[in-house]
Amino acid sequence: MTAGKLIGIGVGPGDPELLTLKAMRRLGQADVIAHFAKEGAASHSRAIVAAHLRDGVTEMALCYPVTTELPKCSSAYRKAIEAFFDSAAAKVAKHLEAGCLVAVICEGDPLFYSSYMHLHVRLAPRFATEIVAGVTGMSGCWSAASMPIAQGDDVFTVLPATLPEDELTRRLSEADAAVVMKVGRHLPKLRRALGSSGRLPRALYVEHGTMAGAKVMPLSAKPDDEAPYFAVVLVPGWENRPGGAL
Amino acid sequence: MTAGKLIGIGVGPGDPELLTLKAMRRLGQADVIAHFAKEGAASHSRAIVAAHLRDGVTEMALCYPVTTELPKCSSAYRKAIEAFFDSAAAKVAKHLEAGCLVAVICEGDPLFYSSYMHLHVRLAPRFATEIVAGVTGMSGCWSAASMPIAQGDDVFTVLPATLPEDELTRRLSEADAAVVMKVGRHLPKLRRALGSSGRLPRALYVEHGTMAGAKVMPLSAKPDDEAPYFAVVLVPGWENRPGGAL
Repeated sequence: MTAGKLIGIGVGPGDPELLTLKAMRRLGQADVIAHFAKEGAASHSRAIVAAHLRDGVTEMALCYPVTTELPKCSSAYRKAIEAFFDSAAAKVAKHLEAGCLVAVICEGDPLFYSSYMHLHVRLAPRFATEIVAGVTGMSGCWSAASMPIAQGDDVFTVLPATLPEDELTRRLSEADAAVVMKVGRHLPKLRRALGSSGRLPRALYVEHGTMAGAKVMPLSAKPDDEAPYFAVVLVPGWENRPGGAL
Repeated sequence: MTAGKLIGIGVGPGDPELLTLKAMRRLGQADVIAHFAKEGAASHSRAIVAAHLRDGVTEMALCYPVTTELPKCSSAYRKAIEAFFDSAAAKVAKHLEAGCLVAVICEGDPLFYSSYMHLHVRLAPRFATEIVAGVTGMSGCWSAASMPIAQGDDVFTVLPATLPEDELTRRLSEADAAVVMKVGRHLPKLRRALGSSGRLPRALYVEHGTMAGAKVMPLSAKPDDEAPYFAVVLVPGWENRPGGAL
């Protein structure tokens, strides 16, 4: 028996119409469709492709362990997460050994900050793999904001809001254009870093950027510091654009 | 008469199957389909959508002026280019004033380093606009290389190879993951900057990354410094990945 193939399929930022033709074709051909999910919560990637699942296809939910009692920086947390990815990879490997075409659906792009990558690095040494690139979440956000983000020789940077304030400030000062991810409870710190780096007047706050109820506003107009984990802040570049920088 | 609407449609990195369902739908509805092109050269974005153009749709090629005699940093060059974008916007505006739905097709994503942005900033103050996000060229490149690029709290940076060597070196040292664009004749300098920043062993050279004849190799294994303008170099992050960094 020939071993199967692992396909990481990017399903885009949220709008089901941002699926690619290739994603559609490979979804239709897969024997098994796997997705990562939180126990008890609806999966975004599953919802995006729901209308396109073949009747009777085998589905596989890979549910993250509950680790709320462990601090994220602890080695116990890290061990629990690595053990989870090991076991998820072992489950997927069973289907690959049986000769199946296994598609792992992921929001955004499979090789850009996605959980699929944890399967890929574990399974690519043993099995054939294929990547179907997808529209990233950040493209979904700046499109929702209708905001040109980077042009010409701009340096563009993606930063996690988890960085220390002085590092955020320095990196925001040095980037022509930036996307700050994982905003959540880090918003007060991020606001200060944007202020110190002179970027606050241009910063846009985007919440649910890739869904129907997208909220987009200048960060300076946002009256509070409440933000969900997946909110992003866009700092557009292209300062010499016609009409002037924002 | 109601004014029309301008749509920036991302058509993805090159593979026609990486068109989104939304791009397909909006292409089918557009009255006018415009694209940027070099005089006398085939347009990539036009080729990507060729099979999906409605019979009899009005097409509009916006051809860059020939500026080979002008140095790119000169004000004469800049004036010629700005005048070209002004006149392209005026041509598109005529159709919008006539009530047409005008789609501008662009490789990659419309708001990420694309020529569409030059029309957008000129026309968005006067006309309704819509953005159809697309798969970026860089996603196409790391997918072709099957290379996870950034994970977790990685800082990810896009750099033009046109930067001075010391700045390239510094920025490469500070990024966890990077994509260097516009490699071309800057490859010898980029190689030195990657060496000084300790990134050379991980760097991947990608040529025609989003086309059928993609070439992917460790930069350290590339025997010469010949590279086309659109070649990119990927420096993958996620240094603590299982199995170790590259």
